[in-house]
Amino acid sequence: MLCFTSDYIAGAHPKIMERLMETNLENLSGYGTDPYCERAIGKIKDACGCPDADVYFAVGGTQTNQLIISTMLAPYEGVIAAKTGHVSLHEAGAIEYTGHKVLELPGENGKLSAAAIDAYVRAYYADENYEHMVFPGMVYISFPTEYGTIYSKQELTEISAVCKNYKMPLFVDGARLGYGLASKANDVTLEELAQLCDVFYIGGTKVGALCGEAIVFTKKNAPMHFLTQIKQHGALLAKGRLLGIQFDTLFTDHLYEEIGAHAITLAEKLKRLFHEKGYRFFIDSPTNQQFIILENERMKQLSEKVAFGFWENYDADHTVVRFATSWSTTEEDIEALSELL
Amino acid sequence: MLCFTSDYIAGAHPKIMERLMETNLENLSGYGTDPYCERAIGKIKDACGCPDADVYFAVGGTQTNQLIISTMLAPYEGVIAAKTGHVSLHEAGAIEYTGHKVLELPGENGKLSAAAIDAYVRAYYADENYEHMVFPGMVYISFPTEYGTIYSKQELTEISAVCKNYKMPLFVDGARLGYGLASKANDVTLEELAQLCDVFYIGGTKVGALCGEAIVFTKKNAPMHFLTQIKQHGALLAKGRLLGIQFDTLFTDHLYEEIGAHAITLAEKLKRLFHEKGYRFFIDSPTNQQFIILENERMKQLSEKVAFGFWENYDADHTVVRFATSWSTTEEDIEALSELL
Amino acid sequence: MLCFTSDYIAGAHPKIMERLMETNLENLSGYGTDPYCERAIGKIKDACGCPDADVYFAVGGTQTNQLIISTMLAPYEGVIAAKTGHVSLHEAGAIEYTGHKVLELPGENGKLSAAAIDAYVRAYYADENYEHMVFPGMVYISFPTEYGTIYSKQELTEISAVCKNYKMPLFVDGARLGYGLASKANDVTLEELAQLCDVFYIGGTKVGALCGEAIVFTKKNAPMHFLTQIKQHGALLAKGRLLGIQFDTLFTDHLYEEIGAHAITLAEKLKRLFHEKGYRFFIDSPTNQQFIILENERMKQLSEKVAFGFWENYDADHTVVRFATSWSTTEEDIEALSELL
Amino acid sequence: MLCFTSDYIAGAHPKIMERLMETNLENLSGYGTDPYCERAIGKIKDACGCPDADVYFAVGGTQTNQLIISTMLAPYEGVIAAKTGHVSLHEAGAIEYTGHKVLELPGENGKLSAAAIDAYVRAYYADENYEHMVFPGMVYISFPTEYGTIYSKQELTEISAVCKNYKMPLFVDGARLGYGLASKANDVTLEELAQLCDVFYIGGTKVGALCGEAIVFTKKNAPMHFLTQIKQHGALLAKGRLLGIQFDTLFTDHLYEEIGAHAITLAEKLKRLFHEKGYRFFIDSPTNQQFIILENERMKQLSEKVAFGFWENYDADHTVVRFATSWSTTEEDIEALSELL
Repeated sequence: MLCFTSDYIAGAHPKIMERLMETNLENLSGYGTDPYCERAIGKIKDACGCPDADVYFAVGGTQTNQLIISTMLAPYEGVIAAKTGHVSLHEAGAIEYTGHKVLELPGENGKLSAAAIDAYVRAYYADENYEHMVFPGMVYISFPTEYGTIYSKQELTEISAVCKNYKMPLFVDGARLGYGLASKANDVTLEELAQLCDVFYIGGTKVGALCGEAIVFTKKNAPMHFLTQIKQHGALLAKGRLLGIQFDTLFTDHLYEEIGAHAITLAEKLKRLFHEKGYRFFIDSPTNQQFIILENERMKQLSEKVAFGFWENYDADHTVVRFATSWSTTEEDIEALSELL
Repeated sequence: MLCFTSDYIAGAHPKIMERLMETNLENLSGYGTDPYCERAIGKIKDACGCPDADVYFAVGGTQTNQLIISTMLAPYEGVIAAKTGHVSLHEAGAIEYTGHKVLELPGENGKLSAAAIDAYVRAYYADENYEHMVFPGMVYISFPTEYGTIYSKQELTEISAVCKNYKMPLFVDGARLGYGLASKANDVTLEELAQLCDVFYIGGTKVGALCGEAIVFTKKNAPMHFLTQIKQHGALLAKGRLLGIQFDTLFTDHLYEEIGAHAITLAEKLKRLFHEKGYRFFIDSPTNQQFIILENERMKQLSEKVAFGFWENYDADHTVVRFATSWSTTEEDIEALSELL
Repeated sequence: MLCFTSDYIAGAHPKIMERLMETNLENLSGYGTDPYCERAIGKIKDACGCPDADVYFAVGGTQTNQLIISTMLAPYEGVIAAKTGHVSLHEAGAIEYTGHKVLELPGENGKLSAAAIDAYVRAYYADENYEHMVFPGMVYISFPTEYGTIYSKQELTEISAVCKNYKMPLFVDGARLGYGLASKANDVTLEELAQLCDVFYIGGTKVGALCGEAIVFTKKNAPMHFLTQIKQHGALLAKGRLLGIQFDTLFTDHLYEEIGAHAITLAEKLKRLFHEKGYRFFIDSPTNQQFIILENERMKQLSEKVAFGFWENYDADHTVVRFATSWSTTEEDIEALSELL
Repeated sequence: MLCFTSDYIAGAHPKIMERLMETNLENLSGYGTDPYCERAIGKIKDACGCPDADVYFAVGGTQTNQLIISTMLAPYEGVIAAKTGHVSLHEAGAIEYTGHKVLELPGENGKLSAAAIDAYVRAYYADENYEHMVFPGMVYISFPTEYGTIYSKQELTEISAVCKNYKMPLFVDGARLGYGLASKANDVTLEELAQLCDVFYIGGTKVGALCGEAIVFTKKNAPMHFLTQIKQHGALLAKGRLLGIQFDTLFTDHLYEEIGAHAITLAEKLKRLFHEKGYRFFIDSPTNQQFIILENERMKQLSEKVAFGFWENYDADHTVVRFATSWSTTEEDIEALSELL
């Protein structure tokens, strides 16, 4: 059966699997001290244009968000995020579990605006009772967002300026970063993104790896004893090579970019397909996730031949569904879908 | 100077001070095991019509909210509250500090509706990904609310039914309970309130005590080893008598009711005063807190002769201020205010 | 019945009760912003010879330990304490509740030695895997200890030096500080103690107050936004005056010293009494807590006429019990005890 | 260079790599809902003789310990463990991070005795102040221990009985379970172990997998909504297949047993080698970790040609080192070591 459910339905990109096989019998030291981790870190710093960055690896997205947010916030601080942000909604309270409030702002199409952040923080400090409230200590945005949308360079620059103004670090969740950077609508480079924020991560799990996210503290600003804090969170792999080898491969010969580009090309085709067939879109997404409004009867029919993600109810008769592409989506998949539609 | 800033500007009701003096030299056992605590607990159970209730004392409101919510929720649960609820806004993240999310719903005039709670929880369980989200595990309402408003018996009954339906305990923050019960608009008795919820507290700090809140688990449903959990939170007083004697006094000869009635009578007079002088109200509060919209210039003038609480900006030229009455407010205070206005 | 159970069996010192009465009707601002708090802070700074200290009030001992330790430690740090320390044993895990390990060292007679601390920390940093372990981030000692013993100036100086060497703040739990300072065996002044440590607290609850502990960050080194962190812990009193007035009184006309001296004088008499009658001591305590080994039959007899604290089993036939004096113990109590023995 | 540093120096067992390759392009659902996870769970239940067990996968050992302990303990409970236990010493405070104390008992050769546990818990409940202390809520042992030693069936049966008596679940950390079961000195089967404890895990990372531990709640006793709690801890993999496929392979055709047997056979040879050459052992370990006392000069020489783990200083002139075998150790490695010695 055709499958567009998500971008984590297949294993790893074949080049990654190959490297894991080739290196399998090498004796390497543990906990991220092996040469593959080191090499991957070097390549990531180069790709980001951040020679001074601190780079670490974690296993999954929620873990990474939890690690970064809980170690960068002071105990009395919370993190500003869109109400629809992954940390607000879909991480089972992982941030609150570490003692911090997610300060939820409305957002639009999954995005926060510099103006909204500024208004919130200004009002906070203007409040006579601000010392009885949670300090806004960080801003979290996702690129692309949970709705597939992306921020323009202009928007990021404005948000970055507000953050600087209030001395709040800006954190970009890049679980799907590769698809954002490859989007036709995107005008930000990886280097620029790294410049504009204080910490971000390069998603591996959803962009071709078996697992793994690369955390980049762009300004040599990793929290003190970050390795120990990773361990304390239960997030340190004994066989750190598993992450090092994957990211070393992703950042060799532009594989990460290639994966992003491939998925975007097919997503564009898929989008055109739906357009041509007269389907309605829930949101205009320029990345690898496409949100379509299906009439419920039609949804049932389709679901017999193609798998996709249920997103949310639209109204009594319609449902929003998600079609996602990834490195493993093929031209044949798109053609087959075309015939189905 | 005249002072209407809050309901905690004076010490304790004279009868409480008297009893503290009379008992001062008695040798009593510690940590709440003294006869005054025991007696106070008995009287509270009687007043609530809950012979099976578990009653404990804590020192202040935020501490009490933190204790109740964190010990009654499972680790994967959050508490539903109005966006304007004390636990949402004005406790410096004390709930999140214990690892739990406050699930904020809009609310109206500080109140949650049964319909809004029901819709939220129903949508939660209808979501395919609900296991990746925070379970709604409890409902928090305040009576009166942070805006001075109160719930009718009908409203409480409906909320209680929704809670029962989803097996979520209903928790009523009664930091100002005495003023809610005494309100002319109120149609709920203490006994009925106790019947309708699973846990609530009887505020002492803001209703005549030096400090202290009495927690009532209405259905013999105190969390396991609650005393140890109080200790673990740093909330157990060595001289537990300080709370026992105060509540014993408050629940002797209807002192608690008397204090509530006194403050409400004066609040009604104060309200009439502002009405007569043509002031605008921000909200129609039937309890001891009155929220007035003042023109900024007028606010400045007034503040030279009478102290009140700054609440929030209304617009560029107006500010919302709070006038509160309490056991210590006198008829003379109201008269003096009348002259000022 | 005679009562030597603990030093928190009575209410507050009469001078404190008097001041609470006198000030009861004054309208004061909340949350520790009133003039009594301010005045108390000034007097405490003077008494400690620390014009730059940051001083805050909390309600009880466990709360204070929890507040200080959790706000001064980095997330990856634990606190070194004697196995018999209050934070190790008798606070229901209040420190661990905030996410930090208590690193327990053996100790002797309730005391830690500089050598033991140094050896522990040196071994820690010498361990190849120290990054996988809890960093020693603070040293906790109590003065007097839970066994009534005290540190000499020499011992404190050595511990202080070790702490400085490893950049670990030294925290002195002074729940019973007044009795330690007044001890005939003591050679440390309050000023010297303040010099030697980074933070300590002046116990009120067990030294004449209804409740309250005064936290002194001796080097203007209070954790950032400490007031907000007090609130977040549920430890901020609305009627902060309750603590301010008590400490203002304790630090007026040397009342705090007087209370300490009174209790020590009577403890010395009590000690002599037991000595003369041939009782054995469990430990040679120079402060207000005396630990006696009683034959079990004798214990039963005595307990019919005098109340004391059960401490621990000594052997099959003997039990260790505690007799404590305080401000409320009288010469008559000692005489009555003498007759009993 | 020869390498005996640890049992996680190589990648995964070739059969695991093969299966990961074969299944790489299959489209599978996420978060552990795929058929490989399901199949692995079935095989594990069979192998444990626990048809009713609840089985879940996590990524690494510290994460697994943290997950199990924090979700099975009540908030006021701590976990009993040997002072040398992994959770006590080498997890950077991961247990305390979740709010729980590790109640450390001395232990012998890494092992706890039933008598020591019983004595501790009995003394706890006999203490008048037990409600001010941390409740012993669970017992943690490792099999094999951190020193390579194992418990006999008799010892486990006794510990299990004590746990039942006090209603404390027994948790067995099986990070190296495969090596314990394969030990010549072992008299416990996997089925018996499962019977005797309430929860344990089957270590993958150190027994042939790239990563992964299989948690077995032996009596259908998984904590409520355990999946959500895994997510909340940041421990839920999007590509759950990575764990499912590995454990499916390990539990096909007795691969897990085979790996254990292989490593033990070579460990025995290695042990004999050191014995014959007159080396001293720090501890008599019957599993894959061997602890040798080396004269420091000799250690330096050896370390030029063979890698091993530094364990701890023995005395001024000697050091304890660790040699470990695993699935990837070969007969040739042992022969080469023989020549070196």
